[in-house]
Amino acid sequence: MTLLSSLGRVSRSAPLASKLLLLGTLSGGSIVAYSDSNTAVNKKEEQKKKKVVVLGTGWAGISFLKDLDITSYDVQVVSPQNYFAFTPLLPSVTCGTVEARSIVESVRNITKKKNGEIELWEADCFKIDPVNQKVHCRPVFKDDPEASQDFSLGYDYLIVAVGAQVNTFGTPGVRENCHFLKEVEDAQRIRRGVIDCFEKALLPGLTEEQRRRKLHFVIVGGGPTGVEFAAELHDFIQEDVTKIYPSVKELVKITLIQSGDHILNSFDERISSFAEQKFLRDGIDVQTGMRVLSVSDKDITVKIKSSGEVVSLPHGLILWSTGVGTRPVISDFMEQVEQGGRRALATNEWLQVKGCENVYAVGDCASIAQRKITEDIANIFKAADVDNSGTLTMEELRDVVDDILVRYPQVELYLKSKHMRNVNDLLADSEGNERKEVDIEAFKLALSEVDTQMKTLPATAQVAAQQGAYLAKCFNRMEQCKEQPEGPKRFRTGGHHQFRPFQYKHFGQFAPLGGDQAAAELPGDWVSAGKSTQWLWYSVYASKQVSWRTRALVVSDWTRRYIFGRDSSRI
Amino acid sequence: MTLLSSLGRVSRSAPLASKLLLLGTLSGGSIVAYSDSNTAVNKKEEQKKKKVVVLGTGWAGISFLKDLDITSYDVQVVSPQNYFAFTPLLPSVTCGTVEARSIVESVRNITKKKNGEIELWEADCFKIDPVNQKVHCRPVFKDDPEASQDFSLGYDYLIVAVGAQVNTFGTPGVRENCHFLKEVEDAQRIRRGVIDCFEKALLPGLTEEQRRRKLHFVIVGGGPTGVEFAAELHDFIQEDVTKIYPSVKELVKITLIQSGDHILNSFDERISSFAEQKFLRDGIDVQTGMRVLSVSDKDITVKIKSSGEVVSLPHGLILWSTGVGTRPVISDFMEQVEQGGRRALATNEWLQVKGCENVYAVGDCASIAQRKITEDIANIFKAADVDNSGTLTMEELRDVVDDILVRYPQVELYLKSKHMRNVNDLLADSEGNERKEVDIEAFKLALSEVDTQMKTLPATAQVAAQQGAYLAKCFNRMEQCKEQPEGPKRFRTGGHHQFRPFQYKHFGQFAPLGGDQAAAELPGDWVSAGKSTQWLWYSVYASKQVSWRTRALVVSDWTRRYIFGRDSSRI
Repeated sequence: MTLLSSLGRVSRSAPLASKLLLLGTLSGGSIVAYSDSNTAVNKKEEQKKKKVVVLGTGWAGISFLKDLDITSYDVQVVSPQNYFAFTPLLPSVTCGTVEARSIVESVRNITKKKNGEIELWEADCFKIDPVNQKVHCRPVFKDDPEASQDFSLGYDYLIVAVGAQVNTFGTPGVRENCHFLKEVEDAQRIRRGVIDCFEKALLPGLTEEQRRRKLHFVIVGGGPTGVEFAAELHDFIQEDVTKIYPSVKELVKITLIQSGDHILNSFDERISSFAEQKFLRDGIDVQTGMRVLSVSDKDITVKIKSSGEVVSLPHGLILWSTGVGTRPVISDFMEQVEQGGRRALATNEWLQVKGCENVYAVGDCASIAQRKITEDIANIFKAADVDNSGTLTMEELRDVVDDILVRYPQVELYLKSKHMRNVNDLLADSEGNERKEVDIEAFKLALSEVDTQMKTLPATAQVAAQQGAYLAKCFNRMEQCKEQPEGPKRFRTGGHHQFRPFQYKHFGQFAPLGGDQAAAELPGDWVSAGKSTQWLWYSVYASKQVSWRTRALVVSDWTRRYIFGRDSSRI
Repeated sequence: MTLLSSLGRVSRSAPLASKLLLLGTLSGGSIVAYSDSNTAVNKKEEQKKKKVVVLGTGWAGISFLKDLDITSYDVQVVSPQNYFAFTPLLPSVTCGTVEARSIVESVRNITKKKNGEIELWEADCFKIDPVNQKVHCRPVFKDDPEASQDFSLGYDYLIVAVGAQVNTFGTPGVRENCHFLKEVEDAQRIRRGVIDCFEKALLPGLTEEQRRRKLHFVIVGGGPTGVEFAAELHDFIQEDVTKIYPSVKELVKITLIQSGDHILNSFDERISSFAEQKFLRDGIDVQTGMRVLSVSDKDITVKIKSSGEVVSLPHGLILWSTGVGTRPVISDFMEQVEQGGRRALATNEWLQVKGCENVYAVGDCASIAQRKITEDIANIFKAADVDNSGTLTMEELRDVVDDILVRYPQVELYLKSKHMRNVNDLLADSEGNERKEVDIEAFKLALSEVDTQMKTLPATAQVAAQQGAYLAKCFNRMEQCKEQPEGPKRFRTGGHHQFRPFQYKHFGQFAPLGGDQAAAELPGDWVSAGKSTQWLWYSVYASKQVSWRTRALVVSDWTRRYIFGRDSSRI
């Protein structure tokens, strides 16, 4: 709308000819070109530019925007935050090991380097309308009537990267009485909350029971976030709180409640048990096999799964970190595209939402519905059997094997899981000898188990960032790949896919456990734990920062913590 | 009450004898001594310790607590914040030149070095009861019924250092629609508010008029805070905003409204005009001679004093910084001690509240009611005239002149203003010749104009800090000076005052004007302005930090700003 107002300004002063020119430009697309000489050229360019609307500026959205070449797109971003947050460091913010501002970077700063302008609007998208190719948005400034008018944006391509929200599993009292740890504001609130607990426990007039209640920190969920928060809190209490709240340090207790049998159960077993042993030594009470029934402002009620016993625990502060749920705008969109009832938007392997080819979904709000190879076996066989002999020779197979491996990544995972070298091994006869050719039945039998290796990608920053970057690469070569498709064979319809499907590359995962110890699971089944792993963690997390500014700030925060400890001012 | 609960715990397990012992200790005073062998000694010590309650942890409160020797006092602090904020840097926080956390230090950290424990409670004192020597307090945790019970503390000495609040002069709409800049939270809110204005101005659907309104920043009050905020905002817009909000930078306007004829009118004239000229070059609109009539969410209505014209200006954000008002707890206390209707608590020159000898008031909530020398002339004359001759010889005068200068600091100011070297000059005859002796009438005449030089101290951090430190020194030598008073002669009642009265030493004042320029007024009527003054400002402000931690952080914030600019993330 800068457009309309500048238009108004110009038309008041400019002669008729340029008015007409401007109107012509306006109808064409977006930015108004003032200079007469290159208007015609610009006009053509503008007309060609497709409108890309991006919802969200988390890991997926930002890595898409960073890598996108915007010379051929008109990009508009809608996000309730004007910054990107390095979420893996959120647990560190809760106790002041790292400052909130050190892990955020302005989106405008990240995107301004581009040779063009990306428009960003601080608003929430509350409705996606795929039929009219529009999104409806509401600015975040609720208390300002002028600046809270809903608006809508048309798109040619829509990138949905709004992330997920906390999953309370419908447990009563969770929204009212628990802290979450999804956003920077959450981490800041927890930091103030932790310090409040100590200040409250010191007040005159409380019984010892009440003081103990204030200083009972409960964490629900034994995933990486919950475990890291427990570790941070324990370090904060050991290293800093003992010095400034000496009179209540004996009353502090940390309890971690996990519904499964082990904490960190997405990690290797060795890491789970390393973490459990370290927490045992640290005095962090790990309670597994418990289900939370309800939460009040004073107590949390849990059911011990093994005995069926119901217990109430008093609490001062609860962190609820038990997996991800669906945002309302996504639920609504799923209803429209007949995906109702799912947790996340189903996309194909090219991250396109099933049922809307020009809508892409990336990050925690989406999940790839991998195509089963068993559904396509007949087509694959037919496409590979070029001489229509009814059997596949090894030569015929060799021509399509790469396409199969790219299109159905579960094949490679299956081969690996069975310790096979290649597809020939898979098609070997019952004695393990290579065959010269296979018929359709043998082919079906050989591939029948392959789909068991299909995996859903976890809701992590790593996945989201890779998806965003992948999508930007596709967009940057949209025209080029239309003419020269680079994807695998289309076994059903013939020809080739425009792009190679998205493939996730796992670089490992960390679990900081406090006391300068961390555990890590690295590619190739490497597992490491201890102090050196913490240093690896420091260097990886520093290198992964989105800008030199945040890198410098995070490293200086770590240094400051070593020298001065954590600050306990309640701001 | 830790006391009571630990008592409960012990008495459940201990035999009768130790119960009695504990009860004995309890009646004596405060901390319970568990070991039998030194209980008697401790008990005596405890009994001797006087209870000092300090209200507030601003400049005055903290400098008192830092310097107080707590071996002979039982100190309890009540403050709504558990931190001390370096308030002169608050304007820098509003635009992100310095981070909020870099200018705060935990009160427990500042006071924990002492050889003993200072108790701190995060609460507001809402009532001072000087008759029963009690203060009534309310914890700040309003939403927690257990931790929001009122409590009261008894005191032997009370130090009132609660500071002042913003003075709206009863202008309608100010509390609802203006920002203030007294606390760290205010600065954080302004920072978010400024960024919100830019984000709002970019939203689609606004007219250009509405965009201009959002980007009109109005500052009411041309004192150091208002001027520094205007300068910070201008720098922020010039150096950072132009890069990330290029499309709206032309719409930004800063207006500074001052009721007087000049901004910075507490400074030297040369500084005022330097600042006005710099702001003129910078495009900051300085409007003097204007009175604000009312403020709404969209407009601020002002009256031009010279013409009587009433004008409405649209605004996006207003900072109201027009001097200090009285906190309700102080107004209520003043009513009780018959000081109703004043702006601040009147104290004597020893910072004791008039009418309550054991209550001291320091900082912005207090003001020293300097004793007039004209009221005491007869007593001074009588005390000095040791031979009762009815005249004072110069020898007799010499014996009391130091006491006069200490007791009535206005005398020295008067001499300086008249370019006189000493009191003899003051008592010279009409031709300027020294007299050998003076009678009461000549003495009265000579001193009659002196009281015109009495000055009220400004409500600054410098004054508050000096008062706190002075008071701590007095408390540290309370016993010693009871026996050997070090103050001046008591002209009315005879003997000497226990302490020398408080004397303020002015070290000068700074006014940062943006663009790495500052103005300074230094002792001895030195005035300096420009880039070198800004560097002087940097070094003085770095050295004045309360801890090495905040010093390191503030300096690294300044460095970061030079390298990376200010962050515009809305957190």
